[in-house]
Amino acid sequence: MIVEIISTGTELLLGEILNTNFQYLSQNLNRMGFDVLYETTVGDNEKRMEEVLRTAMERADVIITTGGLGPTRGDITKETVMKVCSREGYLDTGIWRKIEAYFAKRGTVVPSNNKKQAIVPNGAKILENGAGTAPGIWLECDGKTFILLPGPPAEVKDICEKKLWNIMLKKFAGQGIILSRILRLRGIGESLTAEIIDDLIMNQTNPTLAIYARRGETIIRITAKAENSEIAGTMIENMQEKLMKHLGKYIYGADDESLAGILGRLLLCHNATIAFAESCSGGLASSLLTDIPGSSEYFLGSAVTYTNMAKNKILKVRQATLDKFGAISSETACEMAVNVKNLFGSSYGVSITGNAGPSASEDKEVGLVYIAIASKDAVYCQKHRFASNRTENKLRIALTALSLAIDKIKSENKNTAEKK
Amino acid sequence: MIVEIISTGTELLLGEILNTNFQYLSQNLNRMGFDVLYETTVGDNEKRMEEVLRTAMERADVIITTGGLGPTRGDITKETVMKVCSREGYLDTGIWRKIEAYFAKRGTVVPSNNKKQAIVPNGAKILENGAGTAPGIWLECDGKTFILLPGPPAEVKDICEKKLWNIMLKKFAGQGIILSRILRLRGIGESLTAEIIDDLIMNQTNPTLAIYARRGETIIRITAKAENSEIAGTMIENMQEKLMKHLGKYIYGADDESLAGILGRLLLCHNATIAFAESCSGGLASSLLTDIPGSSEYFLGSAVTYTNMAKNKILKVRQATLDKFGAISSETACEMAVNVKNLFGSSYGVSITGNAGPSASEDKEVGLVYIAIASKDAVYCQKHRFASNRTENKLRIALTALSLAIDKIKSENKNTAEKK
Repeated sequence: MIVEIISTGTELLLGEILNTNFQYLSQNLNRMGFDVLYETTVGDNEKRMEEVLRTAMERADVIITTGGLGPTRGDITKETVMKVCSREGYLDTGIWRKIEAYFAKRGTVVPSNNKKQAIVPNGAKILENGAGTAPGIWLECDGKTFILLPGPPAEVKDICEKKLWNIMLKKFAGQGIILSRILRLRGIGESLTAEIIDDLIMNQTNPTLAIYARRGETIIRITAKAENSEIAGTMIENMQEKLMKHLGKYIYGADDESLAGILGRLLLCHNATIAFAESCSGGLASSLLTDIPGSSEYFLGSAVTYTNMAKNKILKVRQATLDKFGAISSETACEMAVNVKNLFGSSYGVSITGNAGPSASEDKEVGLVYIAIASKDAVYCQKHRFASNRTENKLRIALTALSLAIDKIKSENKNTAEKK
Repeated sequence: MIVEIISTGTELLLGEILNTNFQYLSQNLNRMGFDVLYETTVGDNEKRMEEVLRTAMERADVIITTGGLGPTRGDITKETVMKVCSREGYLDTGIWRKIEAYFAKRGTVVPSNNKKQAIVPNGAKILENGAGTAPGIWLECDGKTFILLPGPPAEVKDICEKKLWNIMLKKFAGQGIILSRILRLRGIGESLTAEIIDDLIMNQTNPTLAIYARRGETIIRITAKAENSEIAGTMIENMQEKLMKHLGKYIYGADDESLAGILGRLLLCHNATIAFAESCSGGLASSLLTDIPGSSEYFLGSAVTYTNMAKNKILKVRQATLDKFGAISSETACEMAVNVKNLFGSSYGVSITGNAGPSASEDKEVGLVYIAIASKDAVYCQKHRFASNRTENKLRIALTALSLAIDKIKSENKNTAEKK
C-alpha cells in the first residue's frame, strides 16, 4: 500500500517551521507496514496544491495531507481535495456544536469563519479531533483514499492515536509490518555511539540501526520488517540484547520513556518524595518532572534560587560557604540539596548550581555545574561541564540532574529491591 | 526564479531523521528572493527518483537535491541526475586526491567504493565540501539548473555558506527579494485574528498575510516581494501599521522577540526585579524567563510549591485560606504573589495556582488557573481556563503569567515612562 504525504503550508516553504508531522506520520506508517514512498510540501496556493494532489493520485494509494484545515482564508486543503474529487460538502451540526462548545469553554463566541471547519465532504468519514477544532477527514475517491489532517502536531497525534491508526490497520490489514524500537542513551554522544557499534551497523540489513541526537540525548532506532509483530518483536529483542552488551551502561530507557517518567515511577515505587533546589537550570528540572501526569504524588516543590541572597535566606546556605567557595561549588551544592530536602520534608533533595552561559560568573568557566543529591543521611555531589548554548545547556543540566537522581535512588534502594 | 528542493534518502521516508536541511535551505533561499514552491522527499530508488526529477524539471527553474552523494550503493542521486540529463562523467583527480588525504588524516586507506564520489558530470561545476568527502555539483541542463548537495547538515551548510550562496546571487541577480516579518499576538486565537483582519487578507497580494498558531501563541506573517530590501521594508512597515490599528492590543512583539525577553527588558528598564510562586506550572515560567541570557539581573528566584504544605510552610499562605478557599483560588493566588515578593525581596511577585490536567483536583474543573501579580502596594489576580493537554496547558499558563506581568508592569510604570 503506497502512501504519499502532502505537507501543506507556506510557513513550511519559507522555512519558518520544521516539518515534524512528516517524521511522526512516516515513523508510524512504516511501523504498520505502509510504504511511504513520497512526501511533497506545497504552499497554500490552489493551483499548485491541485497539481500536487493530482500527481499523488497517479502514484500513491493513500494520500495523507497535513495542514490547511484551519478557519482562515489561507486554509484551502479541504476545499482543494473536494475540487480534485469533484465532491460537494455539507455543514455537519455535530462538529459545529463541538466548535461552539470549545469556544464556550474559553468564554468566547465562535468567530463566524470557524463555520468552514464544520464543512464535511459528502460521503466522508469524520476523524474526531480531541485537541483542537478541525476534525480530520477520511475520503475515498476513484479507488484512492484521502486522509486530511490538521497542521498542529498535537492535533495530528490526537487524531492518529485515538482514531486513524485503528481505522487504517483494519482497512489495510495483512500487508506485513515494520516494527521499531527506540533506545535512549545518556552520557554518550552520537559519534562515539556510532563508533562503538560500527560493526553491528555495517553488517545489519534487517533489523536496521539508526543513530541520532535529540533533545539532549542520543537515540538508537532498531527497525525490523517481518510477517507479523511477533517475529519482528523477536528480531528487535535479539538486536537489543547485542546493543546492551556494547552500550548497556548508557541505555536508560526505550521508546517514550523519559528520564522524568522513570524518576517518577522510581519514586512512586519506593513511596518516596523529592524536592529541587535549582540555580542555573532556572526551574527546568522541576518543570520536566511536572510534565508527568500525577507527579504531585512525589514532587513536593522547588526553590529556584538565582541569587546568593536567596540561597542564603530561603535555602539557608551559610554565608560563610558562599563567601569562601562561591555559589558554583560542591560545598554550596551539598548545602542546597540537604537544606531543600529539610525545607520541603521530602525523602530526597536535588540541587543544581552553576553557569549555563553565555557569560562567566565568579571567575569560573562557563558551563561548570555542580549537581548534588541528599537522602536521609547522605549527600553526594557531581561536577559537570556543559559546552552548548544557554538553552541547550539548561536542558542537558536538568536531564543530568534527573539522571543522577535515578542512579542514586536506585543504588540506595538496591538492597530493598533485591529482598523483594 | 522557482526552486524545488528534492530531499533524497530512505531514512527520511522511514521517519528516522528530521529534515532540517529543507528548513535551512528554504529559509536562506527565501531571504535571497527565490520562490521555493515545492519540496519533495523520495527514497534511494532510481525509478522513483527519476520520476521526481522529471516532475521538478517541468515546474521549477532551479532544482536542489540533498543526500545520496555518499560512497554506498544506496547513494544514487548524482547517477540519476546524470541519467535524466543524459550526461556522462569523468573521474576528477583533484577530488580523488582530497578523498585520499581525508582518509589518510584518520589513519585509514580509502575504501574503493569512495571512488564514486570523485566522478563529476561533464560540464559541471564543483562545489567544494569543507566538511566531508562528497563535493556539491552545479549542473546546467535544458535551461534548468541542478544543484546537488550531500546529506549531512554540516556539509550542506559548509558548501552553501562558503560557495553556493555567492554563486547563486551572482547568477540570478536582479530578481528582487522577499522579506518577511512575524508579529506575535497574545490573548487572541487564530480564528478571531483572521476574522478581525479578514478584509485586509482578502485584498492583499503583496505583501501577503498568513495567520497561524505556534507554541501557545498566534502569529501573523507579513511577506513582501520587492526590487530591494528597502522597498520591501517600507511595504512591511505600512502593513504593520494597518495591523496595529486593528490588533494593536494583542501584538506584543516581532520576529524572534519572546514574552520572556520582553518581560526581561521591561524589568531592566525599570530597574526592577521579579520572583515567581509556581504551583501547576511546575517551574516552567521561571525556566522560560531564565532562558534569556542575563536574566540574573532581574530574576531573583521562585518557590515551586506543589503541595498545600509547601504553600503554607514556605510561602506562608495561611492555613485558613487554604482550608476555606482551596489552593486553586484567587485568595491563595494573591497570598502567594504577595508572599513570594516579600520572601525574595523583589519588586514584583507573580503566582500561578491551578490545575494543568489531566485529572481534576479540589472538585474544581481541569484547566482552571489563577494568576496573580503583586507589586509594592497592590495585588491583582486573573482567572483563566485552559483546555489543551497537560504540557500544552503548562506552556500556555506560563506564557499567560509572563504576559500578565508585562501588562501590569507597563501600566504601573506608565506615568514614569510618560515623564521620560
